[in-house]
Amino acid sequence: MVIVTKTDATQADIDAVVKRIESVGLKAQISTGERHTVIGVIGDKTLLGDIPIESMSGVDRTMPITAPFKLASREFKDEPTVIAVNDTKIGGRQVPVIAGPCAVESTEQIVTIARLVQKSGASFIRGGAFKPRTGPYSFQGYGEDALKMLQDAKDETGLGIVTEVMTPHEVELVGEYTDMFQLGTRNMTNFYLLREVGRAQKPVILKRGMSATIEEWLLAAEYILAEGNPDVILCERGIRTFETHTRNTLDLNAVPVIHELSHLPIVVDPSHGTGIRSLVCDMTKASVAAGADGILLEVHHDPDHSMTGDGAQSLFPDQFEALMQELKPIAIAVGREM
Amino acid sequence: MVIVTKTDATQADIDAVVKRIESVGLKAQISTGERHTVIGVIGDKTLLGDIPIESMSGVDRTMPITAPFKLASREFKDEPTVIAVNDTKIGGRQVPVIAGPCAVESTEQIVTIARLVQKSGASFIRGGAFKPRTGPYSFQGYGEDALKMLQDAKDETGLGIVTEVMTPHEVELVGEYTDMFQLGTRNMTNFYLLREVGRAQKPVILKRGMSATIEEWLLAAEYILAEGNPDVILCERGIRTFETHTRNTLDLNAVPVIHELSHLPIVVDPSHGTGIRSLVCDMTKASVAAGADGILLEVHHDPDHSMTGDGAQSLFPDQFEALMQELKPIAIAVGREM
Amino acid sequence: MVIVTKTDATQADIDAVVKRIESVGLKAQISTGERHTVIGVIGDKTLLGDIPIESMSGVDRTMPITAPFKLASREFKDEPTVIAVNDTKIGGRQVPVIAGPCAVESTEQIVTIARLVQKSGASFIRGGAFKPRTGPYSFQGYGEDALKMLQDAKDETGLGIVTEVMTPHEVELVGEYTDMFQLGTRNMTNFYLLREVGRAQKPVILKRGMSATIEEWLLAAEYILAEGNPDVILCERGIRTFETHTRNTLDLNAVPVIHELSHLPIVVDPSHGTGIRSLVCDMTKASVAAGADGILLEVHHDPDHSMTGDGAQSLFPDQFEALMQELKPIAIAVGREM
Amino acid sequence: MVIVTKTDATQADIDAVVKRIESVGLKAQISTGERHTVIGVIGDKTLLGDIPIESMSGVDRTMPITAPFKLASREFKDEPTVIAVNDTKIGGRQVPVIAGPCAVESTEQIVTIARLVQKSGASFIRGGAFKPRTGPYSFQGYGEDALKMLQDAKDETGLGIVTEVMTPHEVELVGEYTDMFQLGTRNMTNFYLLREVGRAQKPVILKRGMSATIEEWLLAAEYILAEGNPDVILCERGIRTFETHTRNTLDLNAVPVIHELSHLPIVVDPSHGTGIRSLVCDMTKASVAAGADGILLEVHHDPDHSMTGDGAQSLFPDQFEALMQELKPIAIAVGREM
Repeated sequence: MVIVTKTDATQADIDAVVKRIESVGLKAQISTGERHTVIGVIGDKTLLGDIPIESMSGVDRTMPITAPFKLASREFKDEPTVIAVNDTKIGGRQVPVIAGPCAVESTEQIVTIARLVQKSGASFIRGGAFKPRTGPYSFQGYGEDALKMLQDAKDETGLGIVTEVMTPHEVELVGEYTDMFQLGTRNMTNFYLLREVGRAQKPVILKRGMSATIEEWLLAAEYILAEGNPDVILCERGIRTFETHTRNTLDLNAVPVIHELSHLPIVVDPSHGTGIRSLVCDMTKASVAAGADGILLEVHHDPDHSMTGDGAQSLFPDQFEALMQELKPIAIAVGREM
Repeated sequence: MVIVTKTDATQADIDAVVKRIESVGLKAQISTGERHTVIGVIGDKTLLGDIPIESMSGVDRTMPITAPFKLASREFKDEPTVIAVNDTKIGGRQVPVIAGPCAVESTEQIVTIARLVQKSGASFIRGGAFKPRTGPYSFQGYGEDALKMLQDAKDETGLGIVTEVMTPHEVELVGEYTDMFQLGTRNMTNFYLLREVGRAQKPVILKRGMSATIEEWLLAAEYILAEGNPDVILCERGIRTFETHTRNTLDLNAVPVIHELSHLPIVVDPSHGTGIRSLVCDMTKASVAAGADGILLEVHHDPDHSMTGDGAQSLFPDQFEALMQELKPIAIAVGREM
Repeated sequence: MVIVTKTDATQADIDAVVKRIESVGLKAQISTGERHTVIGVIGDKTLLGDIPIESMSGVDRTMPITAPFKLASREFKDEPTVIAVNDTKIGGRQVPVIAGPCAVESTEQIVTIARLVQKSGASFIRGGAFKPRTGPYSFQGYGEDALKMLQDAKDETGLGIVTEVMTPHEVELVGEYTDMFQLGTRNMTNFYLLREVGRAQKPVILKRGMSATIEEWLLAAEYILAEGNPDVILCERGIRTFETHTRNTLDLNAVPVIHELSHLPIVVDPSHGTGIRSLVCDMTKASVAAGADGILLEVHHDPDHSMTGDGAQSLFPDQFEALMQELKPIAIAVGREM
Repeated sequence: MVIVTKTDATQADIDAVVKRIESVGLKAQISTGERHTVIGVIGDKTLLGDIPIESMSGVDRTMPITAPFKLASREFKDEPTVIAVNDTKIGGRQVPVIAGPCAVESTEQIVTIARLVQKSGASFIRGGAFKPRTGPYSFQGYGEDALKMLQDAKDETGLGIVTEVMTPHEVELVGEYTDMFQLGTRNMTNFYLLREVGRAQKPVILKRGMSATIEEWLLAAEYILAEGNPDVILCERGIRTFETHTRNTLDLNAVPVIHELSHLPIVVDPSHGTGIRSLVCDMTKASVAAGADGILLEVHHDPDHSMTGDGAQSLFPDQFEALMQELKPIAIAVGREM
């Protein structure tokens, strides 16, 4: 950390800051510029804890030098993390696809869609049992019944299950069915939930908060890692900007950025990242080309009768099938396989 | 709701949409423009449920006419909601002040600060017992011990308690101590928590999500109201923008907007809304002038030794005392009292 | 356009709005809902001109049905616009590349880079002669001297020239040298400049304003088209969001959106869209996969000695060469060629 | 400036950076942390010019210590700048009001409004002669004819004139009529225009770009100051965020921030900052309470027949008159006068 003092900071101010730093076993290194004195803090900055340096007299601001996440960082572990689920590896050469409807609506629906996406090459079936909805009057999911329907789809097809968990006390229940937990964008800062899935023994797909910086997202991952669960998969799903034509702005920059900062795999969800069916295929291709370690897609065989408004972004099964073929040469072009 | 069809929509497409609308007991009214046909939906649109009209063939988009929140709306209840807590009324002529440190650090600390802010005119002591922190390595609060310290401060001063609850299963515990629940910006979309405080018998201060639209914020309030708790107080605390000089951008437009759209009171938190001590007083004055129904402020008698980085935005007790005096004529100028 | 009235609008209010609409030769169609009356406006809405319907008594808001741009729209011209410059076509099957340094620094520099990028397959050399800089103390470009250096590079290599014009009275001068004008992100709303290049006889690359919506961007293109210049190429170069790790957030959603809304070609600038050299190659691949009609890249043979801070995002010539090879199979996979 | 090196930077990398810094007469000060070496640059950093330190081998990033603007800074001039125009002082104890319609529509219109706002206490009449419009088909202003109408209004009332100039070659013409130039939000980065008004002898109201950071805004002011015109008045007029209920998000934090960073006065435009008439009065009160040095307001005696859509945000004359009275005690409460 570097501490920048105010132009009118006194020597006593600076001495007090230095003393504070040294009191926790760190070293201070002073650079005297023409206007500002800059104090470098040398050593393990966790020793600083929550000391509010910025509120000390004479201090203008502090600037971090090292990232605040550790277990999630490349510096902690340089080798990419590869997460094996059933026979699928996420984070390796393969680019697996997780596909399915927004919500599980019936056994027939989820089994039908599972068969269709499996035929086209998906590795996981996804579908919401517990649905986070902006308003209280929207369909909130069928809960445990839906989990059982997902189990039926798995039994029929062998596909792994991905489904969302929304609150700490349901982690155990959802964990009895799912192969990977999904944490939704609205729960990226639900810290109790992060800790609870951190204690579970299953991989976690952690969606980026819709206005989370990449650093905050990695800190949310750090909550899970710090509890002992090493299998975190980040998921870019679009961020909130001023643009209103699309539902979200898919931030594909995040894919190479995460690969630089972290060893964790990153998958992309172009369905939520655009919110518009006609944009999904192009953006899926872009995601694979950018280096995504996996793809999440909404697919519905009958979106006009789906139970959530997200039908408008679901691919039809034949679109999905064609897309899966079109992705192959792109994956190969970037050294991957589908 | 108004449905706009694509320029190449067929008559069959339009007929199918109309049939769908009529099948749930609504009426459709068709306007044929030069390029687009527009279908107006007449009747209680909750009958539409989650029918994904936007995914139907020939549909370009839908546009809502009425707001999706009801219990929170002015149309539902035109009279402003006034919430009485102990002897204080929120939403009436009075503009009460809730003040205190970011986190409860010790009995001595919280009692000291409670006495100071009470002397200056605050009605509530605030302080975090459970702290939502961006990273897992930061101080997370003293939990129930801190609740007991708040109780000591209340016993000493008579001030009401405001403290945050972070997860559904702690609502009961926190409710044993607090006079008003606070829901933080990171939990505005924690829907289980919204429902749980909706079942509690105490007022809830609902902070705006840092990238929540005003409509989403009112829908979060609707979750609480729909469970039977009528005492929701909205709190503007700054939104996330591209500006980096301040920690957040305090959106004071939200104050008159909420007063137009809703009967619920709205308070403002200039401490988090700026993140910088030297800006807090001016923005508190602006908040009162904009019509805020209350003010939340961080105050610490020794911010240099506080346990969270938020010390940098805490007012010193003498600043707080002076500010309380300066606010009085502004409150009077806008027809209020402090 | 659809006009939504307030819940308390009187019949007289509604009659006045209808009369106003009919007074300019349009038809009004009224739908009476449970709370709001909705008035549809039928006919050529340009007849409405700037009538401030929203300020009329009883009016809550208006909602547009058709897009405000015409000449730029797919409805006006369904066939994609293909722009031929020298031997290169933009908007067709080919995906041409425009490459070069941020600024023209010397004849030697620009000729060296032109040769390098030509060898790797670029069709145009780019380089700034007039540089828009955030602050007045930064290098502002060598002006006409730089234009002459670009001419030297063209004479040596046969590459077309792309360079920025910043103000209306320099359009003629820049036009004497350049093959395509570039309008920078900071000038997307410089309406005099838009009109002036609209009167020129050369293609214009119109960069998206850093906080412009897609609709505003197409309206800026409309300014150029309306003056009689049909050859507008849109350029996505990153938008401003809350994310601070990257300089901008490259909005690749814009590529398929523009292809849906407009017949104009769209190229992508991953150098500015990321601002970080190590991200450029992955995002260029993503751009081509998303369907970009061309690519703009910063390339510098000696970025450590470049004259603008943008050296940090310039590719080295060998990176550029490798990238050009890697893009080929991706282009083929999406039905294009490089 | 502080330079942070990569964790894998070699000693040769560091030496090269130091050598580069010293080659322009600056001093380098090295702090060796556990992971990163940090190099402090001591001396006048303009000596660094545009040396792209960030692109040098082994460099991770640079972090500025001092602000990039000088003439606009408090460090350059601690005393607030007070600008006298006719009998009015901007930046002093008085809080002057600039009021008028969006566009000048006729002599009768502008004289009528001028008389009304003068009676209520305004010091300047504003009105657009040259109008920047998002699309080419909107009313673009009556140009010089409108300037003459403003002159008539001035002759009738004695009010000063404020009107916008949009392009460098019209600065002279507009300067013949106006008392203060206005530069609109879409022209904050029109650098030729900034320089041209920098050479004029009249005060300039510089509106903040709708997505400009405060630092970029002060750098735009620096362009004007650097040309020799010391009379720059900053104008906060709302920024672009994700919120769609209001047209813009009025960033009142900017008022105390500018007062800290700069000696230049700052005025606020609540009409554009909200875009909705019913919000304007509350936000004007908030602006004065936050410490604004002046207020810009749209007022129209007949907004239903105004020629631009901005009628929807114009106050009626009686609203304006009442507001002017209500502002007085707020101004006094913050040590000002109206």
